[in-house]
Amino acid sequence: MFTFLENGSITSVNGFKATGIHSGIKRKRKDLALIVSDKPCNVAGTFTLNKVKAAPLLVSQELINKGGKVKAVLINSGNANACTGDRGLNDALESQKYCADKLGINQDEVVISSTGVIGEYMPMHILKTGIDTIVTQLSDDGGIKAAKAIMTTDLIEKAFAVKVQLSSGEITIGGIAKGSGMIMPNMATMLSFITTDAEIDNILIKKQLLKSVQNSFNKISVDGDTSTNDMVVLMANGVSKIKIEAESEDEELFLEALQAITIEMAKIIVVDGEGASKLVTVAVTGCNNDEEANIIAKTISNSPLVKTAIYGSDANWGRILAAVGRSGVELDPSKVEIKFDDMLILGKDYDHNFDEEEATTLLSKEEITISVNLNSGTGYSTWWTCEFTEKYIEINASYRT
Amino acid sequence: MFTFLENGSITSVNGFKATGIHSGIKRKRKDLALIVSDKPCNVAGTFTLNKVKAAPLLVSQELINKGGKVKAVLINSGNANACTGDRGLNDALESQKYCADKLGINQDEVVISSTGVIGEYMPMHILKTGIDTIVTQLSDDGGIKAAKAIMTTDLIEKAFAVKVQLSSGEITIGGIAKGSGMIMPNMATMLSFITTDAEIDNILIKKQLLKSVQNSFNKISVDGDTSTNDMVVLMANGVSKIKIEAESEDEELFLEALQAITIEMAKIIVVDGEGASKLVTVAVTGCNNDEEANIIAKTISNSPLVKTAIYGSDANWGRILAAVGRSGVELDPSKVEIKFDDMLILGKDYDHNFDEEEATTLLSKEEITISVNLNSGTGYSTWWTCEFTEKYIEINASYRT
Repeated sequence: MFTFLENGSITSVNGFKATGIHSGIKRKRKDLALIVSDKPCNVAGTFTLNKVKAAPLLVSQELINKGGKVKAVLINSGNANACTGDRGLNDALESQKYCADKLGINQDEVVISSTGVIGEYMPMHILKTGIDTIVTQLSDDGGIKAAKAIMTTDLIEKAFAVKVQLSSGEITIGGIAKGSGMIMPNMATMLSFITTDAEIDNILIKKQLLKSVQNSFNKISVDGDTSTNDMVVLMANGVSKIKIEAESEDEELFLEALQAITIEMAKIIVVDGEGASKLVTVAVTGCNNDEEANIIAKTISNSPLVKTAIYGSDANWGRILAAVGRSGVELDPSKVEIKFDDMLILGKDYDHNFDEEEATTLLSKEEITISVNLNSGTGYSTWWTCEFTEKYIEINASYRT
Repeated sequence: MFTFLENGSITSVNGFKATGIHSGIKRKRKDLALIVSDKPCNVAGTFTLNKVKAAPLLVSQELINKGGKVKAVLINSGNANACTGDRGLNDALESQKYCADKLGINQDEVVISSTGVIGEYMPMHILKTGIDTIVTQLSDDGGIKAAKAIMTTDLIEKAFAVKVQLSSGEITIGGIAKGSGMIMPNMATMLSFITTDAEIDNILIKKQLLKSVQNSFNKISVDGDTSTNDMVVLMANGVSKIKIEAESEDEELFLEALQAITIEMAKIIVVDGEGASKLVTVAVTGCNNDEEANIIAKTISNSPLVKTAIYGSDANWGRILAAVGRSGVELDPSKVEIKFDDMLILGKDYDHNFDEEEATTLLSKEEITISVNLNSGTGYSTWWTCEFTEKYIEINASYRT
């Protein structure tokens, strides 16, 4: 059992402090966030699959994969420190060390992360002055400020927390995220930082994070592009003294809650996608296996033709069926059923005797579920996507002009 | 050696007649085309990989793969006869037979093809009346009319012909095509019909067609969607009495000319992509092998972020590099070089000291080549793409409203 907390964030979790400030990397908005735990944390991370990786991502990936404990995460927005070569790597390491010194902890206890312009060197003087300031402003309720400071083209900050009732007591999970909105001049970066006061060992924490990311952040589509800086980090400081044992019922409950919070963050990233106004859940069922369902859900979610049809509130089952057909999965198209929410749009044998007007009204809602049933097995997968709008083109075509 | 003919088309080839008429499937525009050869033709075809296949496509695919000779191709636009089940299949066979009877040839000498609305039954009465008329209007110079009749959202007809000088004389290759413009309510259908008076056996003609399609129609990207009705058909009637022998120099020359004509058709399809105004050649070189180059060129060509940057004439090398990075190909990003035409935008070690203004001027042209060199091998691949514009969204969001 878990419940979402009002105004929850990473600092809803015992033993974590955070804040977000304007350091000057960006012109006006907050651009520097710091998360610090009272106690050393077990930590897990997932990182971009893009072969072009930003310097801070390389540093943090190595650090986290080493398997030690960490106490802090420093994140800046406005500059991605990507495609910056050796100098970028040195800058990343220097900022990590500088932050560690200011916090009086070891360099390898600080995770670092950046998002923003690529191909530009980090303004180290500004960053260091920012670090000087931010370490003095950490607070027990600064999670939302941190959420704001990691934003780039995001319109709304993304922060959640859940309380989870386990067999031996209550623990909390909190998270902040920034969206896959494309960032000048380049990127569709997705970042998320998750905190918990549960006690989880280094093996289990990794397994839990991978599972939940697989079913949340890895199943959203804004424009299909992935970035040099994407990362998700989960830290467990054990302050609650409630230990999650492998293969226990508590493990299930923890995963369920972690999943819930990552899915909420993933969904809000989609809704906040550039120019988007609708959240579309793509639920694919009846497949031979989950992998095939995943491929189909991904193909539908990434199809520009489907996404423009949704924008136009057009009950265009043909575009959905064509996306299913080109996914590469073997199937009998005459067995495919398509629903918008509970309304059957396409029945077996291409039966499409639906009320167009009713369907258009339904598609005009802000949240819609498109269900696709292949009627040939029990495999399923759920993705989330948004529409393609003129606004998307405008934002992405004119950003640097 | 080959030369393009002025106003060339399928009927520039000896022994082929064609025309295009308005039958009434569409409201106003031409919607029915017929191509007829004086002599039986060896024939090859390539067909959509979409698992959802239209009825006429299934009929023609079976016919062509059987390996016999054909004399005619009947194509309608306005109705795709896709997702129409058994009734659609019967309609397709009936139209094939009806056309054959009117021409006084066998049913299995008629290839059929459709493009247009999916999920609607073919108006057979209208189609038959159209066939009655069209068989009487075939002419030696009706190729352009046929090219017009197969259009859907295309703005310009696509027709070319080349004369090819072979060791024992001259032959001609002609072709018409329609674009991948998305068709109400669904599709990104691409059709092409190619004629030649060369004498080519059934094995060689297939090999030649596959090779040329692989390097032309299979390397264009408008929106990444593929259709239920896509097909390319090549017919050789042997009227020139000039035989192409396998493994001969003539075979090379023929392929070169066939490639040239299919590439021209592919490029004009891209330029005529919905809302597009720029033709972008994506030339990827220096890869470990051609397959990896192909994957990278495809990823760049399909990236919405790259396509919107081109629309905005934004010299956004970061988006291109990020697309390279997420293609899945192993690479050293610091070795990648990117050029726009002859202008170096990104040198090794992320050097990007280019003149922004100059780059923007260059990107404002109607034709641009983006070259990406991985500097790690000799593999290469060339794709063609266009920008993503507000017009694309508008056309595709509002088509049925």
